Amino acid sequence: MVVVLKKNTDESQVQNLVNWLASLGIDVHRSEGEYETILGLIGDTSHVDTDLISGLGIVDAVKRISEPYKNANRKFHPDDTVIDIAGHKIGGGNFQYIAGPCSVESEEQICSIAKDVKSGGAALLRGGAFKPRTSPYAFQGMRAEGLELLREARKETGMPIVTEIMDLSHLDLFEDVDVIQVGARNMQNFELLKALGHTDKPVLLKRGLANTMEELLMSAEYIMAGGNSKVMLCERGIRTFENYTRNTMDVSAIALLKEKSHLPVIADPSHAAGLSRLVRPLALAAVAAGADGLMIEVHNDPAHALCDGPQALRPEEFKEVVREAEAVRNIIKDFR
Amino acid sequence: MVVVLKKNTDESQVQNLVNWLASLGIDVHRSEGEYETILGLIGDTSHVDTDLISGLGIVDAVKRISEPYKNANRKFHPDDTVIDIAGHKIGGGNFQYIAGPCSVESEEQICSIAKDVKSGGAALLRGGAFKPRTSPYAFQGMRAEGLELLREARKETGMPIVTEIMDLSHLDLFEDVDVIQVGARNMQNFELLKALGHTDKPVLLKRGLANTMEELLMSAEYIMAGGNSKVMLCERGIRTFENYTRNTMDVSAIALLKEKSHLPVIADPSHAAGLSRLVRPLALAAVAAGADGLMIEVHNDPAHALCDGPQALRPEEFKEVVREAEAVRNIIKDFR
Amino acid sequence: MVVVLKKNTDESQVQNLVNWLASLGIDVHRSEGEYETILGLIGDTSHVDTDLISGLGIVDAVKRISEPYKNANRKFHPDDTVIDIAGHKIGGGNFQYIAGPCSVESEEQICSIAKDVKSGGAALLRGGAFKPRTSPYAFQGMRAEGLELLREARKETGMPIVTEIMDLSHLDLFEDVDVIQVGARNMQNFELLKALGHTDKPVLLKRGLANTMEELLMSAEYIMAGGNSKVMLCERGIRTFENYTRNTMDVSAIALLKEKSHLPVIADPSHAAGLSRLVRPLALAAVAAGADGLMIEVHNDPAHALCDGPQALRPEEFKEVVREAEAVRNIIKDFR
Amino acid sequence: MVVVLKKNTDESQVQNLVNWLASLGIDVHRSEGEYETILGLIGDTSHVDTDLISGLGIVDAVKRISEPYKNANRKFHPDDTVIDIAGHKIGGGNFQYIAGPCSVESEEQICSIAKDVKSGGAALLRGGAFKPRTSPYAFQGMRAEGLELLREARKETGMPIVTEIMDLSHLDLFEDVDVIQVGARNMQNFELLKALGHTDKPVLLKRGLANTMEELLMSAEYIMAGGNSKVMLCERGIRTFENYTRNTMDVSAIALLKEKSHLPVIADPSHAAGLSRLVRPLALAAVAAGADGLMIEVHNDPAHALCDGPQALRPEEFKEVVREAEAVRNIIKDFR
Repeated sequence: MVVVLKKNTDESQVQNLVNWLASLGIDVHRSEGEYETILGLIGDTSHVDTDLISGLGIVDAVKRISEPYKNANRKFHPDDTVIDIAGHKIGGGNFQYIAGPCSVESEEQICSIAKDVKSGGAALLRGGAFKPRTSPYAFQGMRAEGLELLREARKETGMPIVTEIMDLSHLDLFEDVDVIQVGARNMQNFELLKALGHTDKPVLLKRGLANTMEELLMSAEYIMAGGNSKVMLCERGIRTFENYTRNTMDVSAIALLKEKSHLPVIADPSHAAGLSRLVRPLALAAVAAGADGLMIEVHNDPAHALCDGPQALRPEEFKEVVREAEAVRNIIKDFR
Repeated sequence: MVVVLKKNTDESQVQNLVNWLASLGIDVHRSEGEYETILGLIGDTSHVDTDLISGLGIVDAVKRISEPYKNANRKFHPDDTVIDIAGHKIGGGNFQYIAGPCSVESEEQICSIAKDVKSGGAALLRGGAFKPRTSPYAFQGMRAEGLELLREARKETGMPIVTEIMDLSHLDLFEDVDVIQVGARNMQNFELLKALGHTDKPVLLKRGLANTMEELLMSAEYIMAGGNSKVMLCERGIRTFENYTRNTMDVSAIALLKEKSHLPVIADPSHAAGLSRLVRPLALAAVAAGADGLMIEVHNDPAHALCDGPQALRPEEFKEVVREAEAVRNIIKDFR
Repeated sequence: MVVVLKKNTDESQVQNLVNWLASLGIDVHRSEGEYETILGLIGDTSHVDTDLISGLGIVDAVKRISEPYKNANRKFHPDDTVIDIAGHKIGGGNFQYIAGPCSVESEEQICSIAKDVKSGGAALLRGGAFKPRTSPYAFQGMRAEGLELLREARKETGMPIVTEIMDLSHLDLFEDVDVIQVGARNMQNFELLKALGHTDKPVLLKRGLANTMEELLMSAEYIMAGGNSKVMLCERGIRTFENYTRNTMDVSAIALLKEKSHLPVIADPSHAAGLSRLVRPLALAAVAAGADGLMIEVHNDPAHALCDGPQALRPEEFKEVVREAEAVRNIIKDFR
Repeated sequence: MVVVLKKNTDESQVQNLVNWLASLGIDVHRSEGEYETILGLIGDTSHVDTDLISGLGIVDAVKRISEPYKNANRKFHPDDTVIDIAGHKIGGGNFQYIAGPCSVESEEQICSIAKDVKSGGAALLRGGAFKPRTSPYAFQGMRAEGLELLREARKETGMPIVTEIMDLSHLDLFEDVDVIQVGARNMQNFELLKALGHTDKPVLLKRGLANTMEELLMSAEYIMAGGNSKVMLCERGIRTFENYTRNTMDVSAIALLKEKSHLPVIADPSHAAGLSRLVRPLALAAVAAGADGLMIEVHNDPAHALCDGPQALRPEEFKEVVREAEAVRNIIKDFR
């Protein structure tokens, strides 16, 4: 961390700061220039609150040099984290397909799609029971009943289930869910993250619509700081000025998150574009960039698809994407 | 709402859509062109789920023409909403100053600042007990104890208190808080919004960092749909590419929200810029643009301000801003 | 195009508008609702100036339904455009690698890199002679002399050259350049685009840092409207809030531009991330998404690389990327 | 400037870097930590090319501490720049109104509006002759003929004229224009900026749609580095996700640019919002934030306003805004 001091600062206040930092185990190297003085902070600064320092009257600017996250940081944990979900491993070279409908609608629907995506190559079943919707007038999901139907589908197919939590008060309902998903709008719902940190559930943490990779990793850090290290990061598209697509999938984030962190990275090409015909190219791009898994929306009844988003694939399209993605994965493996 | 159909669509599917819309009380006007067919939907479309329609195979695009919010819409409620907070009115020409520290730190601190800002012109006291922080290692606020100290300050000064809720599971703790603040990161925490809709508490709803005015109004709609119409909208700066300031205050939003909605609009110039020296110009700009109130961070001990952000004013600076803001308000009033 | 009228508008003014549109060959379908009147404009609206209509006192909003570009639009030109550059074809299934240094530095440097990238698989040589730099104090390129050295490298290797023009007053200097590149900051330099429209040079048009696909296609339209249809679109990363990477490559744009337009799409993974170690994953992702070519920065002397950006590959790394990209291309081909 | 070195770097390469920096007159202070080494660069680093340093194999990151602009920097030029335009001063406490139509349409139109805005309080006349338009099919302005008509209006009213240049090849045509405007899309047209640096014309430099204040100041630096210090900075709204307004006026930029630089700052509330009814609140907000001038679009014939944008005021509305803005200016002055 680098602290830039204002010109003509009171030396005793500078000493106060240096002493306080020393008490946190941080060494301070000082460089005096004509127009500014720079303090170089050497040591573990991840626990230093930059806002506190910025707030000091003698400080002009604070710049972090090293990352503020520690548990999620590959520097301190060089080996890939591998997460085991009912026998299906993700990370460390292990790749999984997570597929299913946007929303759970009925037992018949979810069980039938579960079978379809299983035979198409998916190991995990996704399905929304609690649905975050911009409008209070839009369908909000089947909620607790939807969770029940997901469990039913798991019983029938043996597939572990992935579903989104919207509030920590629902945590009891998610007790036997296999992977708890935190949606983009809740990426900085810090109370929820803390609560998840005290469970031992694998968490699929989606990147917020306008959040940086560092903020995503800090949210992972919230969960990990509580003791739960089973976090999967999910790139699902960020908000940009582009309006031909719903969001913009940040494919460089997939590669870079894997460099910065040891956590598995999942891509969600369905939500990234919001257009079913872009799912295939984005899925392949995500695999080419090094993703550890794909999460894809699939529905089985396009003729009555009133309740599925415009981004869902049909089961046979999903199967095709899996086949092609596997071919790309093999190339990536061969070349490394 | 306008629905653009794909070319060469199956007529029976179009009829299904038209019939379904008719069942919702919506008239459909059809325009056939060489390259596309446009359906104009006439009627109350606020309850129509655009995602459902976009998902249909025959549909190319859906464009909303009218606003998807109804309770918050000035078209349907032309008169300004006036919210009464323990005798202090906001909206409909009534203007209030809300001031206090970023975080509650001690009884002495909050009571002393409360007296300072009251004498400087503030009617309401703000102070953070639960603090949303990007890092799990940063100070998270005094939480329940902080709320207790705020109540203490209210008892001493008579000022109603405004403080942020971070999770609906804390709602009981906020029972005698005068105004519940929803922070930017929770603007789309829909479960929290729904819960607040079932209380009768005034809610100060902050705009999310990368959210549009329409999304802010839809979040207000969530609260209002539950029966609670005491919502104040708060512009607190949006995320842009600019990095000299923490956020960018969208001053046009202040003027436009008041046009689109009947709800009061509060500006928070402290968080908007994150720099105390910008609070004055931004506060005046917000008043000039028509805000119904200002929320300003004030601390009283800059020498030991380790726990206040770099955006706080000292009490005498706050007083000065109030005096100047009042002068601008008088001009605005004179000219209308 | 859809025009939403204000409530209680003067009928004679509406008739004026309808008559004016009729004179442009556009049919107007009118839908009357309780709160608004919608005019559906049917016909070729690409020549209608939406700003003119928005400016009318009776108009509430104008929404385009169909694309405002015509020459660049696949709807009107279903077949892929194939551009032939000295025998090297791009588009319509033809794929090329464009490689070379960020800046031309010396005859030895450019000729040596040209040979390296040619043997690594590149058909075209890129190299900057005129360099757009944010700072007036940064190296501005060798300018005319750099063009001369590029011609020298072409003579030695037979590779056609691609280089950036910064102002139309330099057009004479580019007379025997094979492909003229328009940089991101000049994407809406309309006078330059018009001038290029009157040449018969292939143009590589880079997407601006904060521009939409539609704006990129409108800039292509400027060139094409002048009679030059040899335009290649280039995705080179857009500005987002992310700061771990210089820009964010919009991989969905690669797939979607090819759907919306018949023009070839080139990806520039070097500038997209600004980090050499991300070039490989982004290059493969771009190929997986359907790009017609890759433009990659290569330098041959990392030990003295003071004049190359942090995004350049060494020749052997470039060769490796080409091999891997070819493998991905083969999969894409096999599956279609 | 701070340079963060990679771990385990070759000491001789570090020495090369230190020696090279020393040759530029820059002192290097070195801080060794467990995970990284930080070099603090002390001295005038405005001429150091950060990209060159980032490109070195031994470097992990480069962070600027001090601003890269020098001529435009208030640190080195504490006094306000005052620009005199035919006797009308801007900056250093001098405030001017610049008004006129979006486009010059006819002699009658421009002369009539000129008289109107003069009597309403404008000192300078604006009017577009060369118009940058997203679509090649939109009206491109009267070009040279429009400049002629502006000169005519100047002759009739004595008002100096402000008009936009789109390409440096037109520079001759602007010889007797009083203020040359550089539009948002040309803010980083570096060849144009250089050419303007070699004239002695006052330049009104508009901020680009997605550019930071630092980039705006660097573009001013381009002009000033050539010897022309008569630069006015113009905030005209930036692109954000908001779609109720065309752009978002960054009111904090007005205050902050005046702190960072000694150059005058003009606000353009007409283009910022793109809605005439927002011009008044935004104009007042800009004045409250400390602007040195306002540039406002005015047309005089709303009934036939087919050629004016939706953001133009009528002359009587302009007069009203001037009166109100003057009242706000007086408050600002009284309080300082």
